[in-house]
Amino acid sequence: MSSDKPAVRLALLGCGTVGTEVVRLLHEQAEDLTARIGAPLELVGIAVRRPGRQRGGAIDPALFTTDALGLVKRDDVDVVIEVVGGIDPARSWLIEALSAGKSVVTANKALLAEDGATLHDAAAEGNADLYFEAAVAGAIPLLRPLRESLHGDRVTRVTGIVNGTTNFILSSMDATGAGFGEALDEATELGYAEADPTADVEGFDAAAKAAILASLAFHTRVTAADVFREGMTGVTAADVASAKEMGCTIKLLCIAQRGPDSTGNESVSVRVHPAMIPRSHPLASVGDAFNAVFVEAEAAGQLMFYGRGAGGTPTASAVLGDIVAAARNRLSGTRAPSESSYAHLPIRPIGEAVTRYHISLDVADRQGVLATVAGVFAKHEVSIATVRQSGRDEDATLVIVTHGAPDANLAATVEDLRSLDIVRSIASVLRVEGGV
Amino acid sequence: MSSDKPAVRLALLGCGTVGTEVVRLLHEQAEDLTARIGAPLELVGIAVRRPGRQRGGAIDPALFTTDALGLVKRDDVDVVIEVVGGIDPARSWLIEALSAGKSVVTANKALLAEDGATLHDAAAEGNADLYFEAAVAGAIPLLRPLRESLHGDRVTRVTGIVNGTTNFILSSMDATGAGFGEALDEATELGYAEADPTADVEGFDAAAKAAILASLAFHTRVTAADVFREGMTGVTAADVASAKEMGCTIKLLCIAQRGPDSTGNESVSVRVHPAMIPRSHPLASVGDAFNAVFVEAEAAGQLMFYGRGAGGTPTASAVLGDIVAAARNRLSGTRAPSESSYAHLPIRPIGEAVTRYHISLDVADRQGVLATVAGVFAKHEVSIATVRQSGRDEDATLVIVTHGAPDANLAATVEDLRSLDIVRSIASVLRVEGGV
Repeated sequence: MSSDKPAVRLALLGCGTVGTEVVRLLHEQAEDLTARIGAPLELVGIAVRRPGRQRGGAIDPALFTTDALGLVKRDDVDVVIEVVGGIDPARSWLIEALSAGKSVVTANKALLAEDGATLHDAAAEGNADLYFEAAVAGAIPLLRPLRESLHGDRVTRVTGIVNGTTNFILSSMDATGAGFGEALDEATELGYAEADPTADVEGFDAAAKAAILASLAFHTRVTAADVFREGMTGVTAADVASAKEMGCTIKLLCIAQRGPDSTGNESVSVRVHPAMIPRSHPLASVGDAFNAVFVEAEAAGQLMFYGRGAGGTPTASAVLGDIVAAARNRLSGTRAPSESSYAHLPIRPIGEAVTRYHISLDVADRQGVLATVAGVFAKHEVSIATVRQSGRDEDATLVIVTHGAPDANLAATVEDLRSLDIVRSIASVLRVEGGV
Repeated sequence: MSSDKPAVRLALLGCGTVGTEVVRLLHEQAEDLTARIGAPLELVGIAVRRPGRQRGGAIDPALFTTDALGLVKRDDVDVVIEVVGGIDPARSWLIEALSAGKSVVTANKALLAEDGATLHDAAAEGNADLYFEAAVAGAIPLLRPLRESLHGDRVTRVTGIVNGTTNFILSSMDATGAGFGEALDEATELGYAEADPTADVEGFDAAAKAAILASLAFHTRVTAADVFREGMTGVTAADVASAKEMGCTIKLLCIAQRGPDSTGNESVSVRVHPAMIPRSHPLASVGDAFNAVFVEAEAAGQLMFYGRGAGGTPTASAVLGDIVAAARNRLSGTRAPSESSYAHLPIRPIGEAVTRYHISLDVADRQGVLATVAGVFAKHEVSIATVRQSGRDEDATLVIVTHGAPDANLAATVEDLRSLDIVRSIASVLRVEGGV
């Protein structure tokens, strides 16, 4: 299919796993893309650090350059695609592009979560499009629905499994009873975990995505620093077994919620931590390295978006979708909905977030133990939902699940329990989500 | 929050369950909507058949009119919202609006599935936006992702549960072992089924949605008449039990698929019928009256969209999302991506669709029965995947699951089996999907 219109010209920054796939799809689907856009796409340059490196497919070597900034500044570039990642120098390249009115398509979650405001400001200044569907949950069309489909509704809560590595590990622990270390080894072997898995297992990756999701859902600028973060390295095989007994499974969740703070003002709470959820919850059956995001909105009710959250090809699919949108906008002289941050809601600290705890205690098997323990909960105004007690010789195990209470009260309760003589040890503390 | 820009003016056609909710949300979220759009929305008229009828909420009676066409023609109307349903007179109102350059937001799946082409042509003629997110799967943002997020990818298959009534009935049969009649009675009592459930249980509603989904997914005009349709009234408690034994559940699915036809040409097959799917499939756990659509694309891989497919408030949420998009486009002088039907793929008849069958036969318990039955399958070039045989007295039951084969071959096989002396009766024939 041919088109009489001049080509929309693309500059690609980065040519790793995702970039290579973007180039491949641009070639393979050139005809379809031209038909959908109404003009052909032309890749005019690819900025990489090592132009001589072997890359999949046959990419014209003349396209490679090491001068990313020079490529961005070229007059004949319409759309800049950034799949390098990291804060700097990507930030300066994208500011340069946006300020000059070039459309930007980026998969850079770290940059958006740390300093999205600067990019949005540059986009406003240059009257340019900033697309970043690939930054959260890979191929799942998620940001566009949040940005556009639900903008007549009010989102109240977003609960997501947004990190494939940790979901693979937790799914495997749930299926086999393995401990964290063993499951991590398996994930590394199969290529689901990187050599240094810190960003994944400590929740940094999920926290960046949580910040982006919360910003879109609540029309409020949220950065990674605003997100309470707790990794999942502390989740044990015993925790997983205990969750099973309760009809639950453990997932690393990102949770973004709007609601009144302690003084009654509307505010936003954003957190990443492992939590038990009931097996009947739609998120519970999200296995392997899949991602899913569960959205609750006042009018729409419950929605869920599910798919592959990572990988070169799925991420490239999201990048391509954004390229087409940006190219169509350029041809029609229009722009995507720009940043919507009008709500300016304050961030609520984790201490004020209402959560539920599952606490497992090894206690001395004496009369009055339960009364003493229950007294500690009452002192902090935490209401107990269920208690299971099982004795063995002189010890007993108490498994307590609370009703919802401010996280600070729950944390203080656990601190107090720790100091009790009759409490031999606190075997586990896990948050509980999803209406168990 | 105020705005200096003049209001975007809305005309509402219809004020039933969905319309009333649209009006309520427009009032309740006026401030948010103004902020998101950059200008206020103003409802200037509501066309209804009986203006005096009692409606929820306090709607200004001066807004009501019985003259829908007159309202659509008013010079001061920017966006026409149609929630009346049915083919005529809705068609003429929307053609009038679009041709005159007014944006249209509609939830009218029947009209879009029967004659979407006429509406798209009118939209092109008037350079007007035609939005219809609410027409398929209620509140689930599904059309926008298909239309926009995946337009850099190639969708290969869409498998959906798009009718809440039948999903409620089948979920209930699966959970309780009830028969169709009993489960339908329950659905009617709880308000999930209408007094005349034909459109739902016979698959007409799902077929209309399938046509709309297939059109978007494959960039090809598909109408309801192109969709092979088989209702779910024939699904028995025994079928459900048999599915359970196989680790499956039965769902009424709409399936739209692209692929080569018998002569090797790329084509589209669209069908609605009950089918067994494995319990491990993401669609299997979609319970109650929820909807979900499972999308497979070449680059994105597997995606699923889940949520409430019906109900006044969820549908109104989708309508509001479209109103905001249409209003923003008007303010910025832009348009949404228009219809994309460049692929013009031919429709493949059901006989050529490759499916799998689960067939349960009551046969005489004689030597050689299996050989005779297997011979019939071989004659029609249908390969058998599994056979289970269970005897009781002089009768035996054969449960046969086939490999994939053209539907025509499978149908001919069943016809031939019916004429065999040794086959006492064919207890059930069900298609099998989702890679069992």
